[in-house]
Amino acid sequence: MSILTLDIGGTKIAAALVSDGVVSSRETVPTPAREGADAVLGRAAVLARSVCRDAGPADPVTALGVSCAGVVDSERGVVVAATDLIAGWAGTAVADRLAGAFGVPAWCLNDVHAHALGEARHGAGRHTGSMLLVAIGTGIGGAHVLDGSVVAGAHHAAGHVGHVHVALAGDRRCSCGRRGHLEAIGSGSAMLTAYREHGGVAADGADLDAAAALAGPPGEAARAVLATAGRASGIAIGSLLNVLDPEVVVLSGGVVGAGAPWLEPLRAGVRESALDALADTPVVLAQTGADAPHLGAAAFVRERTGAGGTGSSGAPAMRASAVEEGR
Amino acid sequence: MSILTLDIGGTKIAAALVSDGVVSSRETVPTPAREGADAVLGRAAVLARSVCRDAGPADPVTALGVSCAGVVDSERGVVVAATDLIAGWAGTAVADRLAGAFGVPAWCLNDVHAHALGEARHGAGRHTGSMLLVAIGTGIGGAHVLDGSVVAGAHHAAGHVGHVHVALAGDRRCSCGRRGHLEAIGSGSAMLTAYREHGGVAADGADLDAAAALAGPPGEAARAVLATAGRASGIAIGSLLNVLDPEVVVLSGGVVGAGAPWLEPLRAGVRESALDALADTPVVLAQTGADAPHLGAAAFVRERTGAGGTGSSGAPAMRASAVEEGR
Repeated sequence: MSILTLDIGGTKIAAALVSDGVVSSRETVPTPAREGADAVLGRAAVLARSVCRDAGPADPVTALGVSCAGVVDSERGVVVAATDLIAGWAGTAVADRLAGAFGVPAWCLNDVHAHALGEARHGAGRHTGSMLLVAIGTGIGGAHVLDGSVVAGAHHAAGHVGHVHVALAGDRRCSCGRRGHLEAIGSGSAMLTAYREHGGVAADGADLDAAAALAGPPGEAARAVLATAGRASGIAIGSLLNVLDPEVVVLSGGVVGAGAPWLEPLRAGVRESALDALADTPVVLAQTGADAPHLGAAAFVRERTGAGGTGSSGAPAMRASAVEEGR
Repeated sequence: MSILTLDIGGTKIAAALVSDGVVSSRETVPTPAREGADAVLGRAAVLARSVCRDAGPADPVTALGVSCAGVVDSERGVVVAATDLIAGWAGTAVADRLAGAFGVPAWCLNDVHAHALGEARHGAGRHTGSMLLVAIGTGIGGAHVLDGSVVAGAHHAAGHVGHVHVALAGDRRCSCGRRGHLEAIGSGSAMLTAYREHGGVAADGADLDAAAALAGPPGEAARAVLATAGRASGIAIGSLLNVLDPEVVVLSGGVVGAGAPWLEPLRAGVRESALDALADTPVVLAQTGADAPHLGAAAFVRERTGAGGTGSSGAPAMRASAVEEGR
């Protein structure tokens, strides 16, 4: 028995089957983000049916777990706030809409929270009681996983690690409109901006991949940018160690690909700001890669349906044949 | 049936009885901090006996809850690390030692964690699912209370809110040896230092009371110091809102007495760094005052012994008469 998982982001939608912590049958399509929430959910449903069809009738789907962009009330499965990355996304009742389309119970949680939960249960956070995930790509997100659950927050907005204040960001404006946040100095997009300010040449439209690519040329500008971004991230992580005291810090996201010229300054930044007792908290790389949100969404569903993955509503398992007849 | 509580700090020891969330029979003595852990525990035991005697035989004590300075492994009731505020305090098995002396089960937790738990259960955090306590006195501490429990941390060191990085601290050295932490700009002792740097005259040895007193004279130096310290605290709190997203922030500690010239800049600092969705998180003053650590220690004991306060070990309730015969 499998859990069908969807990961809905601003640029792509991925669907997969998760069974016993193993992700299979992954398929991906571009997100029709400008066409709005209905189009995105429609495309997601088509993709999900395709995955079920591939899996065949031997593998019944008992529930649907959705990881998606935006601030998500995961108790209700509703996107309560979102940027305009997907037109009209805020207010979308993702879980109900997809449960209706598929005839199995559905749950929805924020994509970074799903990512962290997957990594905590099956990746670098397994065998630990608490984990801080820091995901550094175009932007910076994160999540605190405590006793196996993500700390979601009173407004479902916990984990905004990119919006921790750090002196190295100076007066730079952050994506949230504030000044001096980590994201304004440590994110992939901030690194590219800084690289260009240093006279570096990066292709237009290159974002976090280019940021990772800065590790390639041994130029001084690229090294300086990576070092500053890494150190700023480390200092912010050190601040959070002093407050959260997690067992492990797990780094993920495209910028991790920059390697040592970024990672070493990050580790030094942690030691620069963490208390003596916490300065040796392991800071490791994520292990589950693109599987993470699927593993996390499936784990979230299992939490709510009992270990076996049986739907709590008593809805029958959905087989591929039934799915083909779906909406 | 009451829980006997002790609050052991570097300057004073307080004992009290807690029953149904009401603190009574509080007594206080100076801590013989330089005489070492044995002397401190001995003095605490004498004080506790005195409180029980005052309470009389009608009020049986079923358990002992201790709130104390230092990093405390609250599962084992052992101080795992401490400053030299109390000589030889690190390594002291506080819970076992006092349980042995009194013949009732005993538990021990960090004093700021106890403070937060008391405030969360009986003060400004009651009726909320999550609370961030920020205690600003000579130093700065705090705790994140989630679903009624303190987030203690993997090394029992969570909640060090004073050791969050903030640009306004510049290069100032923090009590922990790092630079740029909130405590180096926002604490009562940092405020006094800054006041003197601004040419202000404060009595030698005045610490946080003097800091609060800065609110008295309308001098420009005092106002500038209070405004900077408040703003720095607010910016750090804003960072933490973005990561923890608690339902409420509760401020306690001597510096709170400085009032509006400090509190208004603090609230502005929160709005300066918190995300739009979180900028209106209530920031309120603590309500339980000196009762907080007693209420918290008692709540911690109740968590571990069941709601009624009955000792988990099956040890008989200790009556005042028995206490008088104790060790």
